[in-house]
Amino acid sequence: MLPPITSLQNPRVKQAVRLRDRSGRDDQGLIIIDGPREIERALAAGVRLRELFIQADILPPDVEQQLAHQARACDADVLDVTSAVMEKISFGDRKAGVVATAEPPTPTMADLQAKLAKLKKPPLILVLEAVEKPGNLGAVLRTADAAGINGLIVCDGRTDLYNPNAIRASLGAIFTVPLATASAPETIAFLQQQKMSIFTARVDGAVNYTAVDYRPASAIVLGSEMAGLTSAWQATNMQAIRLPMLGQVDSLNVSVTAAIVCYEALRQRSA
Amino acid sequence: MLPPITSLQNPRVKQAVRLRDRSGRDDQGLIIIDGPREIERALAAGVRLRELFIQADILPPDVEQQLAHQARACDADVLDVTSAVMEKISFGDRKAGVVATAEPPTPTMADLQAKLAKLKKPPLILVLEAVEKPGNLGAVLRTADAAGINGLIVCDGRTDLYNPNAIRASLGAIFTVPLATASAPETIAFLQQQKMSIFTARVDGAVNYTAVDYRPASAIVLGSEMAGLTSAWQATNMQAIRLPMLGQVDSLNVSVTAAIVCYEALRQRSA
Repeated sequence: MLPPITSLQNPRVKQAVRLRDRSGRDDQGLIIIDGPREIERALAAGVRLRELFIQADILPPDVEQQLAHQARACDADVLDVTSAVMEKISFGDRKAGVVATAEPPTPTMADLQAKLAKLKKPPLILVLEAVEKPGNLGAVLRTADAAGINGLIVCDGRTDLYNPNAIRASLGAIFTVPLATASAPETIAFLQQQKMSIFTARVDGAVNYTAVDYRPASAIVLGSEMAGLTSAWQATNMQAIRLPMLGQVDSLNVSVTAAIVCYEALRQRSA
Repeated sequence: MLPPITSLQNPRVKQAVRLRDRSGRDDQGLIIIDGPREIERALAAGVRLRELFIQADILPPDVEQQLAHQARACDADVLDVTSAVMEKISFGDRKAGVVATAEPPTPTMADLQAKLAKLKKPPLILVLEAVEKPGNLGAVLRTADAAGINGLIVCDGRTDLYNPNAIRASLGAIFTVPLATASAPETIAFLQQQKMSIFTARVDGAVNYTAVDYRPASAIVLGSEMAGLTSAWQATNMQAIRLPMLGQVDSLNVSVTAAIVCYEALRQRSA
């Protein structure tokens, strides 16, 4: 047993807090995961924890035992902390009593390709060209998980996938939905090589999103709420789809757009 | 012309800042609206502004003229402010250069009923039983506006409809979508009197949400993400619908659920 951490000045506490910022994650090569569901989903996906900080008086004992057991199985340190220390390490308003540090997954296009190759049905994937806020990426992943989407490619080179806000908004789906990052040209080459229909969501799309066929292998491509998709996504072998906008607002949130199109695809595929 | 406001200690500035909190809104009987689109939509809906704070060096001159003209037409004071004053009054990260104080609309069930009575098609409305965060209400309203929903009833007595986060997340749709607040029993009586089909979204709903008919007059009822709907919404004359959840997360965000069901209704109604 390691001794409980009671000091806010403890170096492990300070290092963990630094993981909330990208510079801290880049320096340490680690990420921070808050909440039992999120940590469970990371563990189930094979993410290697380094430390598990537990505030025993608020985490249910069975959850604590389960997480501690799995954490030790990947050689992570399990550390009891006081409420003041947990208050400092955890973020947002969730106070779930458990936070982990972990090695970030490094998903590649080859991994995604291998996962798609194992599917029995034609794959349905999402492509996000721009991620305006980490919370949006997380919200899209939460919906993608629910809709049974087979993968998500992020084409935004600046994106820091495992931002704590992305992990949290995803409820851990960031670890369950197969992910990859690639440039737009790499992604387009991949989609063509996979013989996928490419549906680009555009406010001026030629066809209503319900009028296309998502049953063959398909990729749904979403751009930024403000700027839409870049010109890389204008090609004759792509189909621009639009969502009806009947009111006065001129855009939908990207996770809402993703949800509407993914669930329409799911409806067609289940019919 | 009123003199420009340069002091952060100006009483109007202090009063406006207090409108961010519910206690300030309750005390003053006013709301605060940030951003030109939001203010334009409020004005178009007949909301009476009291003050329009303008930072002229960042607001486009045509927008400034238009808003100032409309504000004066409802006897509001138009006040130039410095960037430091605007920084204090505006909230979030938006810096759009214009903030208004206004009298809150007081929508009633009778108003909603009158608006529904004028429709040529059978009405489609949303009911939100619980509003966990003001931003969620705003996000639902943004989607409801886009989907052409005819009204939204909030059944949560504690809800402070015109919270600044609700106004902002709605992009001003909080002023364009007909709204009402009522208790659950009042709402149910209203829906029955209007002869509406009542569809309650539940994780254990008996029927897939795509398998019901939204073309007649319909109400889609959504509960809290955590707790679902209360027992008031369990009755034989209601149809419990479920959304497929194919992954590991066990819930969708309420605005995502609203979007999926509303756009399915729209698809059926457009077919």
